[in-house]
Amino acid sequence: MPRLAYLGPEGTFTEEALRILAPHAERLPSANVGAALDAARHGEADGAVVPLENSLEGGITSTLDELARGEPLLIVAELLLPVEFSLLVRPGTRMRDIKRIFTHPAAITQCRNFTAREFPDAVVVSAPSTAAAAQEVSLPDSPYDAAIAARIAGDNYGLVELASDVGDRSDTVTRFVRVARPGALPEPTGSDRTSLVAFLADDHPGALLEMLTEFSVRGVNLTRIESRPTGDGIGRYFFHFDFEGHVADARVGEAVSGLHRVCSDVRFLGSYPRADGLSPQIKRGTADDDFAEAASWLARIRGGQV
Amino acid sequence: MPRLAYLGPEGTFTEEALRILAPHAERLPSANVGAALDAARHGEADGAVVPLENSLEGGITSTLDELARGEPLLIVAELLLPVEFSLLVRPGTRMRDIKRIFTHPAAITQCRNFTAREFPDAVVVSAPSTAAAAQEVSLPDSPYDAAIAARIAGDNYGLVELASDVGDRSDTVTRFVRVARPGALPEPTGSDRTSLVAFLADDHPGALLEMLTEFSVRGVNLTRIESRPTGDGIGRYFFHFDFEGHVADARVGEAVSGLHRVCSDVRFLGSYPRADGLSPQIKRGTADDDFAEAASWLARIRGGQV
Amino acid sequence: MPRLAYLGPEGTFTEEALRILAPHAERLPSANVGAALDAARHGEADGAVVPLENSLEGGITSTLDELARGEPLLIVAELLLPVEFSLLVRPGTRMRDIKRIFTHPAAITQCRNFTAREFPDAVVVSAPSTAAAAQEVSLPDSPYDAAIAARIAGDNYGLVELASDVGDRSDTVTRFVRVARPGALPEPTGSDRTSLVAFLADDHPGALLEMLTEFSVRGVNLTRIESRPTGDGIGRYFFHFDFEGHVADARVGEAVSGLHRVCSDVRFLGSYPRADGLSPQIKRGTADDDFAEAASWLARIRGGQV
Amino acid sequence: MPRLAYLGPEGTFTEEALRILAPHAERLPSANVGAALDAARHGEADGAVVPLENSLEGGITSTLDELARGEPLLIVAELLLPVEFSLLVRPGTRMRDIKRIFTHPAAITQCRNFTAREFPDAVVVSAPSTAAAAQEVSLPDSPYDAAIAARIAGDNYGLVELASDVGDRSDTVTRFVRVARPGALPEPTGSDRTSLVAFLADDHPGALLEMLTEFSVRGVNLTRIESRPTGDGIGRYFFHFDFEGHVADARVGEAVSGLHRVCSDVRFLGSYPRADGLSPQIKRGTADDDFAEAASWLARIRGGQV
Repeated sequence: MPRLAYLGPEGTFTEEALRILAPHAERLPSANVGAALDAARHGEADGAVVPLENSLEGGITSTLDELARGEPLLIVAELLLPVEFSLLVRPGTRMRDIKRIFTHPAAITQCRNFTAREFPDAVVVSAPSTAAAAQEVSLPDSPYDAAIAARIAGDNYGLVELASDVGDRSDTVTRFVRVARPGALPEPTGSDRTSLVAFLADDHPGALLEMLTEFSVRGVNLTRIESRPTGDGIGRYFFHFDFEGHVADARVGEAVSGLHRVCSDVRFLGSYPRADGLSPQIKRGTADDDFAEAASWLARIRGGQV
Repeated sequence: MPRLAYLGPEGTFTEEALRILAPHAERLPSANVGAALDAARHGEADGAVVPLENSLEGGITSTLDELARGEPLLIVAELLLPVEFSLLVRPGTRMRDIKRIFTHPAAITQCRNFTAREFPDAVVVSAPSTAAAAQEVSLPDSPYDAAIAARIAGDNYGLVELASDVGDRSDTVTRFVRVARPGALPEPTGSDRTSLVAFLADDHPGALLEMLTEFSVRGVNLTRIESRPTGDGIGRYFFHFDFEGHVADARVGEAVSGLHRVCSDVRFLGSYPRADGLSPQIKRGTADDDFAEAASWLARIRGGQV
Repeated sequence: MPRLAYLGPEGTFTEEALRILAPHAERLPSANVGAALDAARHGEADGAVVPLENSLEGGITSTLDELARGEPLLIVAELLLPVEFSLLVRPGTRMRDIKRIFTHPAAITQCRNFTAREFPDAVVVSAPSTAAAAQEVSLPDSPYDAAIAARIAGDNYGLVELASDVGDRSDTVTRFVRVARPGALPEPTGSDRTSLVAFLADDHPGALLEMLTEFSVRGVNLTRIESRPTGDGIGRYFFHFDFEGHVADARVGEAVSGLHRVCSDVRFLGSYPRADGLSPQIKRGTADDDFAEAASWLARIRGGQV
Repeated sequence: MPRLAYLGPEGTFTEEALRILAPHAERLPSANVGAALDAARHGEADGAVVPLENSLEGGITSTLDELARGEPLLIVAELLLPVEFSLLVRPGTRMRDIKRIFTHPAAITQCRNFTAREFPDAVVVSAPSTAAAAQEVSLPDSPYDAAIAARIAGDNYGLVELASDVGDRSDTVTRFVRVARPGALPEPTGSDRTSLVAFLADDHPGALLEMLTEFSVRGVNLTRIESRPTGDGIGRYFFHFDFEGHVADARVGEAVSGLHRVCSDVRFLGSYPRADGLSPQIKRGTADDDFAEAASWLARIRGGQV
């Protein structure tokens, strides 16, 4: 039974993701993303589940930055989880009693219409996580009347769901990844994604265009790009890339090798099956067979057999 | 005397930025970035000062998203402010008394080495802002012993500075912008920056490469690119671009027009003097004179005068 | 009645092209392409008809070079003429009498299979033009027994056609152009072609890629590219480009202006109706309306109206 | 002693090139470029020497087309030969006797200023080659009074040089190549050139841009590009490329493999030492070491060792 760290406490959306990704795993809640990843790095856990991006909020910067630094870890699986917020209260609290609402800033943003409509005079206060908000609200002497969090958090902390799906959009999705210490990659499935982080050799104009060309010339389609500051002053970035295909694919292998040559550093973050099951459209001349054929042609002409 | 809203409460780094950008302005603290921008939009203020990016944390996503939506606003000035964190306590508190530290998550990240070294056993708790942390700590019955915040926040709330410059890096910088309702742009100075937001017409592979080519072919250098989710599902983004030059420059005008043609929507966010005073290297053939000369040549050949 | 110079003598394919392009023109045969163009330049003719490229032989280098230099001329029309070679003899000559064949080197190449099959032992000698070959063969004391030339040349010089369509390929086509002194351009028809010559500012690696990008970024499709030596040593070229559209089109105008800015010199050679009647596929965002809309948007944002 | 075919007859510039490239070879004159190459192909000769391009006239189209078709041959050496034209006459002929001049059309073009100045009233007639012109003029009953050809041709045919270096430019250079049947390539020297011919898979807009990007993304600099018609109608081309480096170089190998993948056909024409002795500037990340390092990195990450 694997032991997996996750962004806790119990009741977070991340716990929900972990339960789906690894139903039989032992679950180790961590205080934050960095702690969950460190647990995996240092062997206290066999891996970790953390959020990577949200369809409304974008990249989860703490995860992006933690994966880019420290001991390397590999993404081995991903999950897309619809995010449904519930309004959770202590038993006995009624809608009209709610004057102070506690939740994570992302949920404040995502439920703004609901709170403005239903509780125009209520105060909405930031919590470290939605689960922490639920935990706080569960205390009998809490100054807060309600939490906005995952239903699972209500279950964990004995709260009552007064309203469900209170987000302004019903199609919000968060992407979670399961990471592990370096080891054999998941087998290619034909519907894979690869993630990496690239640091520029020098930050000249056109450097990003050059990196994108390394992908496009081999027909590798990007699915996400995220710039993150290196920390060395405004205007200096490194880049997170997600793209279609598995590093075992010839076109992907050549593209990431090209990136490796022109960048000062590339950190490979893994190749793993796509949660959405989509397969890439292979551009003419970029299938594995095309690369194999070209390699044997090259060997021939190098030998003067034309 | 202009009235400027800002990300409050008093004592934030944003207030410090506002004092430098507009020493004589009336300062109106707002609860969050959205509220500050709305105050400018609705006329309660003549403008607003908000953080746009941080050299350590990257784009301030709430600012990026608020500027991309709602009534348009224009950036009219920018400021680069070194971020120095102080350890602030109530009078009488000693280093060895500190068991619970309250601060913004960004500061937790940026001061991790300091807290791990000096307070290995202390609990570090997330606050909505560094100034809010200072305000909380100033209350006599606060459960927190110390705040990490700007020195100005300590002054505002009667705290004592036990340690200064406690960030792991001493060169962290935040970029603040002053925005105003649409109106005449700042005059070109020769050292300007332009900001805009571009929404893709369709999210095909290579769309980002196309957008970057619109810039590069006219010799316009990007200084920042940030992808943000549109909210319409994982994998759909819009893009923030900062680049060298003023929209009044011919090469910039043609580049943004090109972007406007190939994107479903482009929101112009302003042209304004650069805080770092750097001037762009003008690529051969892309100065205003080159465009003027080419335009008159085109007029001649269209008239058959070759 | 216009007076048009052409690549003579009477009986060339060029004369045939002229008869189709301008049935009522007075025809002035010239000794070579340069002389025909000079006649147009100096007013001895109102224009000229010359071959520009051949589907088998490629660009007619003398025409390409003559148009790139000297007083500018404008292409005002083009014609695609199937090239059919005939075997022409003096009355009384039989197939078995043919020992020496006279024709232009291009025809030698294009009729190689025919001559090898029918006349394995005959000598094939180079003539300055196919019409000159016919003229020579028409002389009673000519050392040559047959000419390979256009049927019209046989008619002109009293020769008999012993075999028709003797080229190895039956689909060979030559493209002829009518040129005139600079003046009002032909009106755009929606199916136009534009020609120009571009000289590199400096011959750095990637210069050609840059030129092509000026076209592609505005969605302008090339239909022909031809490199020609500048004469300043091996490895220094200038380029002939043909592309879809009329210089009055916004996307074409911007593309050629871009080329003008990055090249040391661009010579416009004209916009004129395409002989094949094909219309370009207009890439998204590059129609005239798109440019007009973008221009008015640019004017608005430059005025601060966003 | 190798036997080498060349573009004859004796006295051509090609013979001069052959004497320099292979002083001890047996020389076999051929009637034209195709015949010289065929002699090499069919074993009548051990190789051939033919002109490939001229700094004034551009690519020698017959050579380009012959190398692109038929049995493959490999270029194994190149030579840059200054082209100096002489005015050659039978003994006894004086300048004022010259009424009819015989020479190759390329020489007509290149000596236009000289003939116009010295012989304004003379007739200048096209010959199949400059050497053939000299041979013709050497006949006592020739209708021609003078030939323009290489001095060596005068020596061969007993002519007298009345004027030397009569070309309009004194720096005209022709590039000759020595070809051989397929076999081991010349060793890389650090100053090499590679030649190939590429046929487009489909002639879509942007196809040429794609081909050039295969080179540029690996830092391979083109030194010559030449479009040639496929013969399948106007507007359909194949392309000759010369570029820096040896196919044994990693960057060149990957670039030509990429071209091979996206083109319908690529014919390798050889890697051989450059006549000008220039060495390429290696772009960052494209040296052999960079490719080797990237390959071992790729092997590691594919094995999950990050």
